[in-house]
Amino acid sequence: MNYHISDRMASLQPSAIREILKATSDPSIIPFAAGNPAAEAFPAKEIAAISAEILEKEPITALQYSITEGYPLLRESIKDFACRHENLFHGDDALITCSGAQQGIELTTKCLCNEGDTVICEDPSFIGSLNTFRSYKTNLVGIPMEEDGMNLELLEKALKENPSTRFIYVIPNFQNPSGYTTSLEKRQAIYALAKQYGVMIMEDNPYGELRYSGESVPSIKSMDEEGIVVYCGSFSKIISPGMRIGYVIAPQPLLAKIIVAKQASDVHSNIWAQMVCDRFLRSTDMDAHIAKLNDIYRRKVSLMTSCMEEHFSKSVRFTRPEGGLFLWCDLPEQVDMMGFCNQAVQNKVAVVPGIAFAVQPGSHTHSIRLNFSTPSDEGIVRGIEILGKMTQEF
Amino acid sequence: MNYHISDRMASLQPSAIREILKATSDPSIIPFAAGNPAAEAFPAKEIAAISAEILEKEPITALQYSITEGYPLLRESIKDFACRHENLFHGDDALITCSGAQQGIELTTKCLCNEGDTVICEDPSFIGSLNTFRSYKTNLVGIPMEEDGMNLELLEKALKENPSTRFIYVIPNFQNPSGYTTSLEKRQAIYALAKQYGVMIMEDNPYGELRYSGESVPSIKSMDEEGIVVYCGSFSKIISPGMRIGYVIAPQPLLAKIIVAKQASDVHSNIWAQMVCDRFLRSTDMDAHIAKLNDIYRRKVSLMTSCMEEHFSKSVRFTRPEGGLFLWCDLPEQVDMMGFCNQAVQNKVAVVPGIAFAVQPGSHTHSIRLNFSTPSDEGIVRGIEILGKMTQEF
Repeated sequence: MNYHISDRMASLQPSAIREILKATSDPSIIPFAAGNPAAEAFPAKEIAAISAEILEKEPITALQYSITEGYPLLRESIKDFACRHENLFHGDDALITCSGAQQGIELTTKCLCNEGDTVICEDPSFIGSLNTFRSYKTNLVGIPMEEDGMNLELLEKALKENPSTRFIYVIPNFQNPSGYTTSLEKRQAIYALAKQYGVMIMEDNPYGELRYSGESVPSIKSMDEEGIVVYCGSFSKIISPGMRIGYVIAPQPLLAKIIVAKQASDVHSNIWAQMVCDRFLRSTDMDAHIAKLNDIYRRKVSLMTSCMEEHFSKSVRFTRPEGGLFLWCDLPEQVDMMGFCNQAVQNKVAVVPGIAFAVQPGSHTHSIRLNFSTPSDEGIVRGIEILGKMTQEF
Repeated sequence: MNYHISDRMASLQPSAIREILKATSDPSIIPFAAGNPAAEAFPAKEIAAISAEILEKEPITALQYSITEGYPLLRESIKDFACRHENLFHGDDALITCSGAQQGIELTTKCLCNEGDTVICEDPSFIGSLNTFRSYKTNLVGIPMEEDGMNLELLEKALKENPSTRFIYVIPNFQNPSGYTTSLEKRQAIYALAKQYGVMIMEDNPYGELRYSGESVPSIKSMDEEGIVVYCGSFSKIISPGMRIGYVIAPQPLLAKIIVAKQASDVHSNIWAQMVCDRFLRSTDMDAHIAKLNDIYRRKVSLMTSCMEEHFSKSVRFTRPEGGLFLWCDLPEQVDMMGFCNQAVQNKVAVVPGIAFAVQPGSHTHSIRLNFSTPSDEGIVRGIEILGKMTQEF
């Protein structure tokens, strides 16, 4: 049978990089393509103890239907956590829990965008979000990403040229895939432009807590006196991605619609996991916990970059991110980037071709993304040697 | 600020019954409005033991990112479970796990329907699904529900008149809200009509295992030689709704799109809960487990209907369902149904006005829905006395 697929989904094609990404499930391949937290970063024992106590003392609450907005105690403890260093709530802002930040991005897009409306994104940007925007048939406009955030002139040009822009999508901290952090000046300028042109900002901050060096920069949401920023947070990188707990902070009138959308999407997120997350936040010194994670990742990124300095051809430029999980490498212009990625898999190292993150699929790119949190230390050393040898043959 | 809400979500209004449903969270109100499994039906001890073992032996698998299609072992064990009494797989049918059957319904709608395409539904039907269809701006056509399933003449008329129909949505077993079960003859006829008119069927079967009396009827999916039926199942009613584990069985070309949609929606469902569900299915005699649940519900529905026979005015007709969680009551034509529901809440009993389940919001209805699984036995006796007294004043 020839199935009638909706226009929005028919146009979302499985990407050319699928085979490379599939390779990450082969244990003989060194996984620089994934984005998984390090196995040693999971507070598994603490979660097991908390879970056992919940299932002993409150099994019915943990197993029964719950409310769409999220477990009330968790909404409180997330608010305390998210606001411990800066204020993310203004005016009538409120918070819901959802199934990872990804679901927050999806529900917000569903509530804000008609088909054909414009979403302005950093270019390159996170493929998961780009596919969500595409799945609602929005018009994607990419703004080139620079080391201190998106190009402001091109952002303003895009806002002028696209009056049906609904929001600007930014990952201001240790952006996926580039690893770049948007400067305070650019955050202020992006906020001012959004205000001037009457569009919203979707601030996606999954990596913000993973800062290994340098000074933290205030989030755009902390400047939001006008109620124009939707903030998406996640516990995937600091507690557990498998539990699928994220959250959205947004002005109440918009959040009310997001709740209706979530009810029609999955009723509510796993309530047991919400209770575990709540108890973990309440019983843990989160700054100390995050400092331990950052010790793990600081060591891993430093191992990877020092191996790259030793083995990589000097013709390859790469970022030295202050946090997050990714390195971005620019191969020399003349190199066949896709050929390089395919050859790497042949050599048992999986990396992601930069084209995966391009806002327009046909774009030219000669970059690749490397992840340092998933592989073991031995994997990092061996994998970079293999890639390094390949770069020496350019 | 005046937020720009997408047309699809702007038209999805909070319903007039919201206040009544909110009342169900007030513990002083007898909850005939909810649809929760009975607290005593949860296998809490077994789940606690399974969970502890998983978090001890495989903590990283339970806490790490997983694949969108669902935990491979669970997909196998669901297949074995769902097919233990009938064959639900034909041709290239495959299965994914999702966050409750609700998400299966949502993803399938997103993949099959453009805005303006028609979905044909039983009328009345489950409000959660209706809102999902509305959230994609589909054209909803309701077919009156009869005691043995939807009216076939009107179904064929609707298929003729709506050439852009994408699927027929049916809850064949103990339908929510009516409690009616579609007969084998009507299932065959609905399948034949779908085939003839080239449309798909979405078969939603959350209550099928909860049969307290009578003979089970083959599912429509078991007849599906043409690959036109999408089957949505759930463990919410037989293991735990809080875990949010459901599944979709569909032909592979459609399922491939549903997977892409799920990836853009929440990446994957909570993997810990998927592992618990898998181990529970593998270690439990499911027929014996379900027989125990049905003992609980058979007793509760029989208590409720016998109290209704004693206390209710003879002018009220109500269903005596062979399974599921709901009773449907027709109040006399002259009664102000919304007034009755509001008065019931004043009297500390929450019921759902039938209008909540109407395919067209402005429809006339004089029915109400009662749930017998959530209230305690004492609550059933007291609540029916209160409602009975109200019906005696008609």
